[in-house]
Amino acid sequence: MTSTIAGPVGYSLPLSPTGDASMITPPPWHFAGDVIMVDYRIDPEVARRFLPPELSLGDDPGAAAAVFADWQWCSDDGAELADPARCQFTEFLILIACEYEGRTLARCPYAWVDAPVPMVRGWIQGMPKQIGDIHQIRPKTVGRAGPRPGAPGRFDGTLSVHGKRVAEVTVRPASRIEKPPLLHDVPLVHTRFFPGWIPGETPLTQLVMSEVTDVEFSEIWSGAADLRLFDALDPDFASLAPVEIGSGYVFSYAETLRGGKLL
Amino acid sequence: MTSTIAGPVGYSLPLSPTGDASMITPPPWHFAGDVIMVDYRIDPEVARRFLPPELSLGDDPGAAAAVFADWQWCSDDGAELADPARCQFTEFLILIACEYEGRTLARCPYAWVDAPVPMVRGWIQGMPKQIGDIHQIRPKTVGRAGPRPGAPGRFDGTLSVHGKRVAEVTVRPASRIEKPPLLHDVPLVHTRFFPGWIPGETPLTQLVMSEVTDVEFSEIWSGAADLRLFDALDPDFASLAPVEIGSGYVFSYAETLRGGKLL
Amino acid sequence: MTSTIAGPVGYSLPLSPTGDASMITPPPWHFAGDVIMVDYRIDPEVARRFLPPELSLGDDPGAAAAVFADWQWCSDDGAELADPARCQFTEFLILIACEYEGRTLARCPYAWVDAPVPMVRGWIQGMPKQIGDIHQIRPKTVGRAGPRPGAPGRFDGTLSVHGKRVAEVTVRPASRIEKPPLLHDVPLVHTRFFPGWIPGETPLTQLVMSEVTDVEFSEIWSGAADLRLFDALDPDFASLAPVEIGSGYVFSYAETLRGGKLL
Amino acid sequence: MTSTIAGPVGYSLPLSPTGDASMITPPPWHFAGDVIMVDYRIDPEVARRFLPPELSLGDDPGAAAAVFADWQWCSDDGAELADPARCQFTEFLILIACEYEGRTLARCPYAWVDAPVPMVRGWIQGMPKQIGDIHQIRPKTVGRAGPRPGAPGRFDGTLSVHGKRVAEVTVRPASRIEKPPLLHDVPLVHTRFFPGWIPGETPLTQLVMSEVTDVEFSEIWSGAADLRLFDALDPDFASLAPVEIGSGYVFSYAETLRGGKLL
Repeated sequence: MTSTIAGPVGYSLPLSPTGDASMITPPPWHFAGDVIMVDYRIDPEVARRFLPPELSLGDDPGAAAAVFADWQWCSDDGAELADPARCQFTEFLILIACEYEGRTLARCPYAWVDAPVPMVRGWIQGMPKQIGDIHQIRPKTVGRAGPRPGAPGRFDGTLSVHGKRVAEVTVRPASRIEKPPLLHDVPLVHTRFFPGWIPGETPLTQLVMSEVTDVEFSEIWSGAADLRLFDALDPDFASLAPVEIGSGYVFSYAETLRGGKLL
Repeated sequence: MTSTIAGPVGYSLPLSPTGDASMITPPPWHFAGDVIMVDYRIDPEVARRFLPPELSLGDDPGAAAAVFADWQWCSDDGAELADPARCQFTEFLILIACEYEGRTLARCPYAWVDAPVPMVRGWIQGMPKQIGDIHQIRPKTVGRAGPRPGAPGRFDGTLSVHGKRVAEVTVRPASRIEKPPLLHDVPLVHTRFFPGWIPGETPLTQLVMSEVTDVEFSEIWSGAADLRLFDALDPDFASLAPVEIGSGYVFSYAETLRGGKLL
Repeated sequence: MTSTIAGPVGYSLPLSPTGDASMITPPPWHFAGDVIMVDYRIDPEVARRFLPPELSLGDDPGAAAAVFADWQWCSDDGAELADPARCQFTEFLILIACEYEGRTLARCPYAWVDAPVPMVRGWIQGMPKQIGDIHQIRPKTVGRAGPRPGAPGRFDGTLSVHGKRVAEVTVRPASRIEKPPLLHDVPLVHTRFFPGWIPGETPLTQLVMSEVTDVEFSEIWSGAADLRLFDALDPDFASLAPVEIGSGYVFSYAETLRGGKLL
Repeated sequence: MTSTIAGPVGYSLPLSPTGDASMITPPPWHFAGDVIMVDYRIDPEVARRFLPPELSLGDDPGAAAAVFADWQWCSDDGAELADPARCQFTEFLILIACEYEGRTLARCPYAWVDAPVPMVRGWIQGMPKQIGDIHQIRPKTVGRAGPRPGAPGRFDGTLSVHGKRVAEVTVRPASRIEKPPLLHDVPLVHTRFFPGWIPGETPLTQLVMSEVTDVEFSEIWSGAADLRLFDALDPDFASLAPVEIGSGYVFSYAETLRGGKLL
């Protein structure tokens, strides 16, 4: 005998009678983070191989960035902010410049976070987040153990994955600039991808652009930078090693992520 | 200008030029684990509310189980076994008895693992795995710090989530039995579910049964058991509290998971 | 034949030929942290039982505080700041007011940090630090996911130990105050204690006061507070439950810890 | 006014009114573990530099071993075994052969565990344990995801510290042997060391030998081995790199640690 009720519901797994068990809350999701970012360049041919055919390299082939961010997030009612163990995460990601119908976009080939909720949220939107150990220096307003916010100093970030060091950045902000670094100020274009499971099933594959509102930048400080990517992962990751390192940036950033649209 | 290449590939995100970056290897996946399991009963009306309409309660409404498992896994080439940090995980899950077209199946409303790869693999097959802290006693062949394998003793398991204790079991195996506990010896029926992201998009929803081969049980020992579920999560989880506690089991178990089929 | 060399050296274990293997660097240690603190009161008789006989309760018996802090630290050369995984830790501690020769001091019966280096450093100075999961809200200068620094808002902190929730605070800073909260502005008095190991050996026991310089407070904001201590540890910890909850504070704080002196 | 009570007590910090808060239980401590071990050789001059002057190199200068162990432990009443999150830890250590008054002993220059209680217990007895990420293959009695116990197979172990890979071993047990590997069957000789804190204070320094009873070995299997130590820590650690790699061993081992005696 089949039940006549509708069955368990939810925005994500686990589905449950009321939907309260869902691991992920529905968007919008509000983010506020502190960013350490380095512009760099990769081999344009490598960049091209990471792009789906709908995207081109654009007018600055090989432009890339490495981004560390220390986030706090909440759903629309802000409830998560009452539980600091659940509303914080750190992130490291690589961005590659690309273009769609004449518009510059950023493509994220690799990303890591230190918590499962942002990882799954990444997969829902097509951002390939995995779990890593991610740390970055925080500015301090008092004492000697850290740089001052909004002032010259030194900011380091490190990523380790599976117990191996994968990436390090050092940024020495020297002066305030007005314009945000390009790759942090253009939409991200992701491939939503859900593997098939039934033999012969085609994976869900959608090329989508993130819909973001309420973008806010703090003061942006810029200066000399270093980026070290170590050959501790797969050869495709290794191919993203810098051929040139550009400027570094330190700033805070907020956005509200509302969903995606098909390209 | 659009690239003419096919774009990055892979079994899962991250997609990359060669596919080597994929977080998840394609099935089959081979598992070998040590299990501590407790049969128990929940309110049949609660059980019904956790089942999708295609499934019925079957002839033992309210039959449930709590399962701790300490796993090792590998892909078909066994490569993961050379990196012990990556081929081990622990798991806790709840199972509910159900029926489809006269066949007894097990439904998993909640599951936790301690590593991201098995979590994502869970979502690919529709198993609602989240991340938790999961520990269980291991038998030891020497000394006083643990029970002997294949002998009377005491085996405890604990689950904590977000820094709160969620579940505890105690099993005191007393004698060997021949027949595996029912809910560990029937197929799992999951709802594969991938949330929508484009406004108005319907989530991917598929009712699937896991395709498993090479099932192997060790000696199975059984005895008195206790199960403690704490009200530290959502109300739907709390509704799965035991109304009666049955036998406990300690055994090792292996299987190969090959994919799923639609119900 | 006995070697004639001096043997391995170091400030702490591991001793090694050059001393570079030492887990702990010698003081001074520089700290900069963000603090969420709640004044509260415990039963004065309980307070007395936590004090060594050399200390008295002073003129405010039962005054206590719960303190969350999010630290960055470095040794004198600042080298640790280049490795953000190693120079950050979080802390929760309880303070009890006490008095020695007419001087108000603070006694720390329990403390937790989330990293081993500050834990061992605690034991060297007599501070009873253990390892826990400690999280606290960080102010953000942009966006909706967090309170603004130096402004009214809400700041929560949580402590879990061994997978169980142990302490939670909520502070709602409403206005700026001039005077630091008393128990964060007096010296700490610890019992340095190293257990005996040779049968019959007396443990090393020294009553010491920390020698601190370069104290710096940011703006101090104060407001209503809540403190929840859960009965998840030993009965002695449970005896420190609040009989009254006072004001809450949010501020940043820096100090240099240089050593100790015997009382 | 000074209190007339004796003050807080305990085997270790935190001291408390009843002593129940102590992080460490008093010995004896019972251990049962699964060991993967590799004999190797270091430069004898390096070995000498790691020994205190009371110890000599003995008749096999430069003999060393790398040991992975997967432990369960309990105090005399066995209470910890009811909480599997607290009675398990993993360990990696280096051993160097040495001699005192004609007796072969083992010296441990570096050790890592994955939990704070065994780390502190290490410092109490003079074993220089730090915290690391330590994983080793477990034998499985069923399925394909692991070697069988007591049979030829492959066993790997890995150590990462501060997000960097530090050590890896591979052992391929081929046949059973009767005699335990020497360095796992001789007493450990440690330097108990507690840094000074009061300016000018001499650190507590004691050369002690561990007092162990109830030693038990399982079947011991031996075979070819590999050991890889990476230059990810201090130069003193790097100096312990293998100049020759010997046999590998896989076995289970139990002991009761009762205290120490001065050399």
